[in-house]
Amino acid sequence: MTDTSDPTARTTPAAAAEPAALPDLPDIAIERHGEIAIIRLDRPEKLNAQTDQSLHDLIRAFDAVDADESVRAVVLTGTGRAFCAGADPSGGGSTFVYEAADSGQAPPDTGGTVSLRIYRMRKPVIAAINGPAAGVGVTMTLPADVRIAADNARFGFVFTRRGLVPEACSTWFLPRIVGISTAVEWTMGARMVPAAEALDRGLVRELVPTEEVLPRAIAVAREMTAGTAPVSVALTRALMWRMLGAPGPEEAHAAESIGIFTRGASADVREGVEAFLAKREPDFPDRVADGLPDLFG
Amino acid sequence: MTDTSDPTARTTPAAAAEPAALPDLPDIAIERHGEIAIIRLDRPEKLNAQTDQSLHDLIRAFDAVDADESVRAVVLTGTGRAFCAGADPSGGGSTFVYEAADSGQAPPDTGGTVSLRIYRMRKPVIAAINGPAAGVGVTMTLPADVRIAADNARFGFVFTRRGLVPEACSTWFLPRIVGISTAVEWTMGARMVPAAEALDRGLVRELVPTEEVLPRAIAVAREMTAGTAPVSVALTRALMWRMLGAPGPEEAHAAESIGIFTRGASADVREGVEAFLAKREPDFPDRVADGLPDLFG
Amino acid sequence: MTDTSDPTARTTPAAAAEPAALPDLPDIAIERHGEIAIIRLDRPEKLNAQTDQSLHDLIRAFDAVDADESVRAVVLTGTGRAFCAGADPSGGGSTFVYEAADSGQAPPDTGGTVSLRIYRMRKPVIAAINGPAAGVGVTMTLPADVRIAADNARFGFVFTRRGLVPEACSTWFLPRIVGISTAVEWTMGARMVPAAEALDRGLVRELVPTEEVLPRAIAVAREMTAGTAPVSVALTRALMWRMLGAPGPEEAHAAESIGIFTRGASADVREGVEAFLAKREPDFPDRVADGLPDLFG
Repeated sequence: MTDTSDPTARTTPAAAAEPAALPDLPDIAIERHGEIAIIRLDRPEKLNAQTDQSLHDLIRAFDAVDADESVRAVVLTGTGRAFCAGADPSGGGSTFVYEAADSGQAPPDTGGTVSLRIYRMRKPVIAAINGPAAGVGVTMTLPADVRIAADNARFGFVFTRRGLVPEACSTWFLPRIVGISTAVEWTMGARMVPAAEALDRGLVRELVPTEEVLPRAIAVAREMTAGTAPVSVALTRALMWRMLGAPGPEEAHAAESIGIFTRGASADVREGVEAFLAKREPDFPDRVADGLPDLFG
Repeated sequence: MTDTSDPTARTTPAAAAEPAALPDLPDIAIERHGEIAIIRLDRPEKLNAQTDQSLHDLIRAFDAVDADESVRAVVLTGTGRAFCAGADPSGGGSTFVYEAADSGQAPPDTGGTVSLRIYRMRKPVIAAINGPAAGVGVTMTLPADVRIAADNARFGFVFTRRGLVPEACSTWFLPRIVGISTAVEWTMGARMVPAAEALDRGLVRELVPTEEVLPRAIAVAREMTAGTAPVSVALTRALMWRMLGAPGPEEAHAAESIGIFTRGASADVREGVEAFLAKREPDFPDRVADGLPDLFG
Repeated sequence: MTDTSDPTARTTPAAAAEPAALPDLPDIAIERHGEIAIIRLDRPEKLNAQTDQSLHDLIRAFDAVDADESVRAVVLTGTGRAFCAGADPSGGGSTFVYEAADSGQAPPDTGGTVSLRIYRMRKPVIAAINGPAAGVGVTMTLPADVRIAADNARFGFVFTRRGLVPEACSTWFLPRIVGISTAVEWTMGARMVPAAEALDRGLVRELVPTEEVLPRAIAVAREMTAGTAPVSVALTRALMWRMLGAPGPEEAHAAESIGIFTRGASADVREGVEAFLAKREPDFPDRVADGLPDLFG
């Protein structure tokens, strides 16, 4: 694990207080830039194509940064000219042949397991899409909160051109991000989507030149965490994503009522209101690691 | 209660036929402008900040205008330079400390109770956001059908800066209005959102100069009710908002089938079709107060 | 049934291999343009207004083209200057009076039965909206994947002006296509929506001059099917639309896992990956008619 106060440097020692030990994984680099962790798909000679093993390692990387209280937000990016070319096709026509689970049923789609892990993160996740993203390379970014892309990036929901179907829970995430009309058009048709169209349809928040993708993602991650309470951010993220599938506002009312009641009496709120009234920056004492209230019964 | 055929005047006698008696509430003004009722947050010296009591009074105001058959639509606005500064923080660090319900559970979030009341309104609700809106001041507007804002308004989903979580059912409403990406960005990050960004992301339908916010809202309310059947509008509003959380079109098919069957044989439809064929304006006889069919089983 | 390689000609013999026999229906024309089937509302002297019978015939038309393996995509359009004026009002004030079902309950709304049929199609559906669309004439297009309209088209969600309620499952589809704020505004207010506004709010993907609507729809249908596996397209369409109502990504994970497992071992995927590695166009062997895996348990 390295620190990158200058995002172009990757060897500066960590400056953050007491960062946890982070795992050493073959095709994934985990770096630190102050309170921001950078998870980097790091197999540039293969355009960061993913194997089943590297996807499982990616989950370990997210586990590690989620557990690290010194990390306030996570940026996911790729090394080299591509973000991620999708599944590594070196298995040829047998690339997507999987063994059945012990039950005889379909085994869990690994891309979907990655997406669910990101969906359950307790801190903001920003995808810094530094170049082309195809297959699982684009679908794994959908549970991120923000996507920032290089202005020459392209996006390929290529599944129907391979005889497959979309995965990584993208059939749930994509229509909620870009709308159902765009989602069915892109996934049935499987053409490469240019960056400008991705911006227009809402897949990405903004486009910047390639070399600015990571610095910009770090800046946005900072904006999204500065002055906010970590426990509040974790609960807010869970509430928003969970309620995206809820049948009605009554479910939100129940969950938020628990949130307002338990947070309302917290040391964080005392600090937050007093800081607001004193017109100073708050210094929130509560920690995610000390546990979060169960809002969803 | 006063009438404001000129929305800048607030003392003209009511012109509408047989308006019901409306409650007299300390921090809320209810006015009439023909068939449009105006509910006004009316505590300008506190930037219309809300207390638990004023939120409960707001519910009473919506109850009253919903029950009044002479009211076709409702405009929610604020007096003075702010729309609503959010919760009144005069309780300092204890502002958000609530007593448990008798069950020992979390009491219902009052902002959410307001939002659910607006969600269940049987006539269009237009928010005329005349200035800054923060906290419950913005989240309470989300169940409105249309939001029109001053071009110098700002929107603060400030909860994580106070150590709280979003409320007023906003975790259900907001992602459905502005999309999940914008919703998580705004609520986790808690920065003040400028008017132009609110327009771009779909939070508001249009921006106008401050002094035109209320007249424009009244004009839109008129456009949305002129020539339409009150019972049809009430059922349409319920169908659209309810189906926003339904698992599939089959639920809409069931509810709409009841709606088409019961309305199809109504005096309103006879009038509506005959007026259409005669190329005249319809004069619908049915009244909401006479009861609505249960579309949702 | 006629072929229209030139979409302005309607009498050229079918060129596609082994097209199935398609039904002969009084007010609906079914044409072929290579792998694209064109279903045409064909009652121009009535602006393609629909009767209960013509809506049932429309379902038969969709049944026929869905069952025809030589059809890769479907375009729905209208003959003459209108797309569809809605329900035929020749019954006057009794137009919408229906008999109860044998159970005494409301009979199924016929427009909704059409919409559910389109929702369940196993190939892309493009609406080529060649002119004004009102009532069921616009709501029946909502389950289409893409809507392309004439730049002088107008859209009328006119139900509340007739004393009715929206139908054809539009209360589920419309807010998911244009957002809830636009959906409630358009349906409660019932004004005619001009083409430019329909484009701005996302109801239609693009506007073109009237005479280019059908050729453009055919071109888009081709783009969406060229080089893709029919079974993958059918499963992708079902996944996206079904997951639009699912409570969470876990449901997508379950369904996609079955899809990836069963497709991963298919002859289509072998061909798809091998063609990709060889940089040639794939020639997929699997056929929808041979059955689709059940992804939804």
